[in-house]
Amino acid sequence: MRSRFEKLCREAQISITKAIEEIDGEGVFREDCWTRANGGGGMSRVLSGGKVFEKAGVNLSVVYGSMPQEALQAATERGVDRAKGMAPGERVPFFACGLSSVMHPKNPHAPTMHFNYRYFETDGGVWWFGGGTDITPSYLNEDDMKHFHGTYKEVCDKHDPEYYEEFKAWADRYFVIQHRNETRGLGGIFFDDQNNKTPDEHFAFSEEAVNSVIKAYGPIVEKHKDDPYTEKQKQWQLMRRGRYVEFNLVYDRGTVFGLKTGGRIESILMSLPETARWEYDHQVEPGSPEAEFLEACRHPRSWV
Amino acid sequence: MRSRFEKLCREAQISITKAIEEIDGEGVFREDCWTRANGGGGMSRVLSGGKVFEKAGVNLSVVYGSMPQEALQAATERGVDRAKGMAPGERVPFFACGLSSVMHPKNPHAPTMHFNYRYFETDGGVWWFGGGTDITPSYLNEDDMKHFHGTYKEVCDKHDPEYYEEFKAWADRYFVIQHRNETRGLGGIFFDDQNNKTPDEHFAFSEEAVNSVIKAYGPIVEKHKDDPYTEKQKQWQLMRRGRYVEFNLVYDRGTVFGLKTGGRIESILMSLPETARWEYDHQVEPGSPEAEFLEACRHPRSWV
Repeated sequence: MRSRFEKLCREAQISITKAIEEIDGEGVFREDCWTRANGGGGMSRVLSGGKVFEKAGVNLSVVYGSMPQEALQAATERGVDRAKGMAPGERVPFFACGLSSVMHPKNPHAPTMHFNYRYFETDGGVWWFGGGTDITPSYLNEDDMKHFHGTYKEVCDKHDPEYYEEFKAWADRYFVIQHRNETRGLGGIFFDDQNNKTPDEHFAFSEEAVNSVIKAYGPIVEKHKDDPYTEKQKQWQLMRRGRYVEFNLVYDRGTVFGLKTGGRIESILMSLPETARWEYDHQVEPGSPEAEFLEACRHPRSWV
Repeated sequence: MRSRFEKLCREAQISITKAIEEIDGEGVFREDCWTRANGGGGMSRVLSGGKVFEKAGVNLSVVYGSMPQEALQAATERGVDRAKGMAPGERVPFFACGLSSVMHPKNPHAPTMHFNYRYFETDGGVWWFGGGTDITPSYLNEDDMKHFHGTYKEVCDKHDPEYYEEFKAWADRYFVIQHRNETRGLGGIFFDDQNNKTPDEHFAFSEEAVNSVIKAYGPIVEKHKDDPYTEKQKQWQLMRRGRYVEFNLVYDRGTVFGLKTGGRIESILMSLPETARWEYDHQVEPGSPEAEFLEACRHPRSWV
């Protein structure tokens, strides 16, 4: 499974960056390989200052080595026993492979999109899959949300009739900026600790989910990349990016875990937007499109 | 002491905002009063989009009520027993008053400055003073740093010959962005848990320190507010502001404590710059002014 999952990630990295370059029409991904002192490494592909994308990155990492049992517990949501077979206090040999990405388009009507798919196993024979794809617009467009969520509902339904409802709710719960009591964006799917089926079944789902990223997101960017917009709408987008920064630095499990455990900073913080804005006590006008969007962040609802 | 410290903060808020308005020449502070559901409240004064300052805020808060013993421990650096006289598990009635401020000028050659002075006491009779003033330029100017640190060394020396060395080192230790192994800026003074002298003596020091903010910072902004600068220098400043955001959201004790305990978000995040920037794997040119500045953040040194 280690090599199968790595192959999946490598191929998805290539196909997704290729598709994004086509949408952009100008920007090109730059490739950056890095190694991890204690085992493994990764390959970041980053596009900056494109025609359509302000910043887009797809980051592959394949790491292994051993980690303290507490760190291993912190790496997953439910903190179930991931150290099976190890003596108390013993470091746990592990392998982890993942592909993660954030795309920040310039146009305020084109949403930001994030995905992450990963496979984790220990030498004790414990393994699990995790991941998800979620979308963060600055304005609410019902058709876009129907298309995005609809695409992932279709992917989910093929593998398990309960997946979409479960993973959609998981995303709504996970992407909350707790100090503001609002979500980062309009959700998608999110899952972790998946090991109740055969590895093949979980793999097949991850494969289809990661390979549906462009199908779910591409048409939305294409549709809005040349939308006219005002300076006020651009400022609003930058303020929503400020919220993105708040979520990632304060709550995102991967980011916080990476920062505290000495991960590669540039890869971890690749997810931050190129520009962000904070205005003191900014209030949206009642009834405005900004207010409508905020309402959707405060009360997650169904899109399909 | 409660009312004396509150009076000091209120008067300093007025005199500092007045001085900043004079330096700006155009921008005016807007006043915002707020109350805290569980006791007390505050008054924020915020200037946005001035001629010299992109964003400047001075926030007074006077809060009281009761808090869990664990929260009280987390509020101070050393976590010494602040719950004296309380039964285990009992909530601790407290009073806290503080004035905190961040000034972000537009010109990349004019540094950002932050200060915070506070007094804390519990009904169990435990009390302490804390605070500090620190400076965050984007470029290194030795004369400016000599003036800023020199001003605070003079203030410190009048009250205790050991203060400057101790509090300067405390700032260098405190303002570290740990995941980057660099400081947020070029330090200043920082102290907490001060209660080994009489309240009058600690008060006198806080009074002089807060009333020296403009003397320490004003001339530096005046000097650089109209410096010519290039687009590249502006971008570098915005990247340093990105670091400011990283420090405040990930490490700053006041911010993190405020976010996790349901404080007033706009007051807590007033400290964030209006705009910030993240470029993937940005590298400074060896020997450039940017490299010189970064070097000073990586190896704090003496300025006076």
